[in-house]
Amino acid sequence: MTYCVGMSLDRGLVFMADTRTSAGVDNVSTYRKLFSWEVPGERFLTMMTAGNLATTQSVISIIDEQIHAGDDSPSIVNAPSMFRVADRVGQTLRKTIRAHETGGEQEAQAFNASVVVGGQIRGEAPRMFMVYPEGNFVESALDTPFFQLGETKYGKPILVRAYTPEMSFEDAVKLLIVSFDSTIKSNLSVGLPLDLQIYAKDSFRNGRSLRIDDSDAYYRTISDGWSQAIQLAFDSLPDFTFPEV
Amino acid sequence: MTYCVGMSLDRGLVFMADTRTSAGVDNVSTYRKLFSWEVPGERFLTMMTAGNLATTQSVISIIDEQIHAGDDSPSIVNAPSMFRVADRVGQTLRKTIRAHETGGEQEAQAFNASVVVGGQIRGEAPRMFMVYPEGNFVESALDTPFFQLGETKYGKPILVRAYTPEMSFEDAVKLLIVSFDSTIKSNLSVGLPLDLQIYAKDSFRNGRSLRIDDSDAYYRTISDGWSQAIQLAFDSLPDFTFPEV
Repeated sequence: MTYCVGMSLDRGLVFMADTRTSAGVDNVSTYRKLFSWEVPGERFLTMMTAGNLATTQSVISIIDEQIHAGDDSPSIVNAPSMFRVADRVGQTLRKTIRAHETGGEQEAQAFNASVVVGGQIRGEAPRMFMVYPEGNFVESALDTPFFQLGETKYGKPILVRAYTPEMSFEDAVKLLIVSFDSTIKSNLSVGLPLDLQIYAKDSFRNGRSLRIDDSDAYYRTISDGWSQAIQLAFDSLPDFTFPEV
Repeated sequence: MTYCVGMSLDRGLVFMADTRTSAGVDNVSTYRKLFSWEVPGERFLTMMTAGNLATTQSVISIIDEQIHAGDDSPSIVNAPSMFRVADRVGQTLRKTIRAHETGGEQEAQAFNASVVVGGQIRGEAPRMFMVYPEGNFVESALDTPFFQLGETKYGKPILVRAYTPEMSFEDAVKLLIVSFDSTIKSNLSVGLPLDLQIYAKDSFRNGRSLRIDDSDAYYRTISDGWSQAIQLAFDSLPDFTFPEV
């Protein structure tokens, strides 16, 4: 599986992705699933991928080849809007999946992949999209300010409860680490290290990017501290008493 | 979907089940999924069901008919051990699913159901089993002291973190309500009211059974209080700071 979260804040965008890929529990590897492109002063884009690794690597390679084909060739670094960026990613994703299908519903699903793409192009606000295997996509909005890919269930309750659009980048990283830690503890197919990408609104350049591995002192503090904090939270709730009979 | 949890404690067994059944989000009903049988002074048994409602209702009806067929007919109230009870439930479940199959892998899965059955027969300790659609089953153990059916992911992290075998029935109910509330808030196909069944070790009779609906004051206190407690727990963790570059 995979776990990725893209989060839209008032002050910009935050992306976090795990790096574990697996072809069964007996065949586990580490691959990067978070990729960024910068045109300094004009645009900054980040993509996170989930699904079949052959598909997602092909998509990233094709998108890179389009960029290096020159200024006249359409690519995500010269698309006129984030909508057009998402559309280009969607078309590339759809074509890549189709290229490997040989027929049959089950086989089609084997090559499936999804992408979260976000960023900002000068003249627009920061925008973020969830791109589906069929090539269509939805945009994040005030009521749905984050997208999750992959193993979404374990880490969602804390996102829903602690997210606010006004939060600082530091608080967002703390929240994401709690969400990822809950997922990593519950699903073997999601694993460290984690890739983090920050984009500050109207900066049009790379913010901070970090790789967090299992030697990271802050990660370990949160991972150990969250279990204890949850137990204290549980203890703080009023006790149940059976009704009189 | 469904959410059921059976929990083994030092002082006995606790079962909780939701009551929502759905054939699509536009066709939702309330059905009991928790059933108990008592032979006072000799045995007490509880079953919880998940899966196709026609299958689970058939299984419960067949088990009841076996009981009422008389003392000489084999049934769960005269089976010599909890292992034989689980085996009888498994065989009934498997036959019921098979009876409706007309072939094809997908159709077979449509009739599938699973059961948690637990209780105590005089001469044995309390025991609990997870019974699969194929009729085989596994028993709970010290390392795996609870079983979940249905939508297990949202409510699992709190179970893993707050469960202890020594906990009181009151604390177990509080824990189950937190786990069910997290699930109900995240998955529309799990819903109130909840059925609760307590069995006190070596009592060989019905302990407490309750139905908790949305007018229950304690449920509402936990449901509102947990969000706030989680936020306080999150705030209590140390803040992230970006490393110096």
